[in-house]
Amino acid sequence: MSGQNHIDTLIEDIARKHSPIAVGLDTRLEYLPADFRAAHSALAPAEQILAFNTAIIDALCDIVPAVKIQSACYEMIGPDGMQTLKLTAESARSHNLTVIIDAKRGDIGETASAYSSAFLASGAQFEGDMLTVNPYFGYDGVKPFLDDCAKTGRGVFALVKTSNPSSGEFQDLALADGRKLYEAIGDNVAAWGRRFIGAHGYSSVGAVVGATYPAQGALLRKRLPSVFFLVPGYGAQGATAADIAVCFDKKGTGAIVNASRSLICAHKKAPGTNFVDAARTEAIKMRDAIRAALKI
Amino acid sequence: MSGQNHIDTLIEDIARKHSPIAVGLDTRLEYLPADFRAAHSALAPAEQILAFNTAIIDALCDIVPAVKIQSACYEMIGPDGMQTLKLTAESARSHNLTVIIDAKRGDIGETASAYSSAFLASGAQFEGDMLTVNPYFGYDGVKPFLDDCAKTGRGVFALVKTSNPSSGEFQDLALADGRKLYEAIGDNVAAWGRRFIGAHGYSSVGAVVGATYPAQGALLRKRLPSVFFLVPGYGAQGATAADIAVCFDKKGTGAIVNASRSLICAHKKAPGTNFVDAARTEAIKMRDAIRAALKI
Repeated sequence: MSGQNHIDTLIEDIARKHSPIAVGLDTRLEYLPADFRAAHSALAPAEQILAFNTAIIDALCDIVPAVKIQSACYEMIGPDGMQTLKLTAESARSHNLTVIIDAKRGDIGETASAYSSAFLASGAQFEGDMLTVNPYFGYDGVKPFLDDCAKTGRGVFALVKTSNPSSGEFQDLALADGRKLYEAIGDNVAAWGRRFIGAHGYSSVGAVVGATYPAQGALLRKRLPSVFFLVPGYGAQGATAADIAVCFDKKGTGAIVNASRSLICAHKKAPGTNFVDAARTEAIKMRDAIRAALKI
Repeated sequence: MSGQNHIDTLIEDIARKHSPIAVGLDTRLEYLPADFRAAHSALAPAEQILAFNTAIIDALCDIVPAVKIQSACYEMIGPDGMQTLKLTAESARSHNLTVIIDAKRGDIGETASAYSSAFLASGAQFEGDMLTVNPYFGYDGVKPFLDDCAKTGRGVFALVKTSNPSSGEFQDLALADGRKLYEAIGDNVAAWGRRFIGAHGYSSVGAVVGATYPAQGALLRKRLPSVFFLVPGYGAQGATAADIAVCFDKKGTGAIVNASRSLICAHKKAPGTNFVDAARTEAIKMRDAIRAALKI
């Protein structure tokens, strides 16, 4: 990846596939179809999840540019789950998908450096192309990740406005200078990323902006023109294609939308359909809905 | 632990040992003495770290009440490192030490629930008595942890004012209502914890308050009388016993101070001394300095 800004690679892959979609691999054992589990009953639970993930990756890699792997779902299984996280990331990378590790790490500098070694550095054990990070520590808690990005071309998505119901409790607090907290954090994220702006005008230092808050998404899109957005909340969390359209720029770029359960659990709403076919059908439907909303 | 608030157990163990100290197991391979590594050369690096950690736990368990295990240091080693994290926590728990897993997790509710299953729930893979959490998502990102605390008596430490140089970048932002952001978050942390106040007047919902900011520590101690503090920054990060004294109440309780490198790397400043003896000597010195500062 060295020599190429990964955010440019991602933007180009989105354009080629006409598909600003990340498949969220927030895989839990109960998401696996009963017949799949029965057919893989010789495997440990963590291995069954790996088999499910690799099947999803194989089935969707030509129509989506990225996967977002939710670390929590693998941590709860223990060391075996972490092995599945590692191998899921490797599988997706081997299919030239952008691997977003959604771990929302944040700590003081020295510890952030250890997290970057775990997820973002070249040769990391849980090697991703991009990592979600929590900015609460300020710049010196983010710098170790950026130091690795400078070496590898990789990137981060810093939490700015999250998709959950109580995200406003702190993020929407009014500051004395007239800004909301999420705007202040967004402004600093943009400043941190200025030296990482790639060929398409977007920085490797991106932001998480929840689709469930379209008004704030629209405001942030205008305010942070060089910040690429990772947009969670589509599908199962309730946001529509119209809601997410505001997170894109006038050219229909500048964001990638994640959907997890609406894709990987699509089989639950389509009895008799194989889970990979159900996921593919839903991903195509999602892609086409977003293309229509973006007019791309 | 059910039926007993773990924060009460911790407060009582601190009183019995006259030692409000958590040994920080932020263990990295380069911290291990060369002769120890040579003697354990048949073991994989992650196993060498486990052997080091268990030796530290054996040597200090009678004079400290708690260990704080820094998850990042184990994640960077991969699945084998996570196995060491798991077994380190088990070793400390088997010595009746309070295990604080320092993972600073935070996410939307459903994902926070997975993190709680990983670190805090009964039977968790990486089972701790207390977990550090990041409050940026607001209440619904913290509630899943509290739901497990309600079942087990366990607790959390939410980040309020961190010890790193740039912690003020966001945490000290002035709000329109006259508070600083860290005060607002502290106020909400206190409110979240009101239903978890134990026999000694402190809640299972604690706060991380860095020793490197004594003025803010003193202010928070007054403002949040029922919130127990986890105080990092002592020793290698530069804070002194006088700096941390402000984080305690008038009875000399209400906080636990973490030191990592100053204890587990003490052997590097004491050539010819075994690492466990060097750590024990430094822990006693730290305990006595804090007792003198607190007049307990």
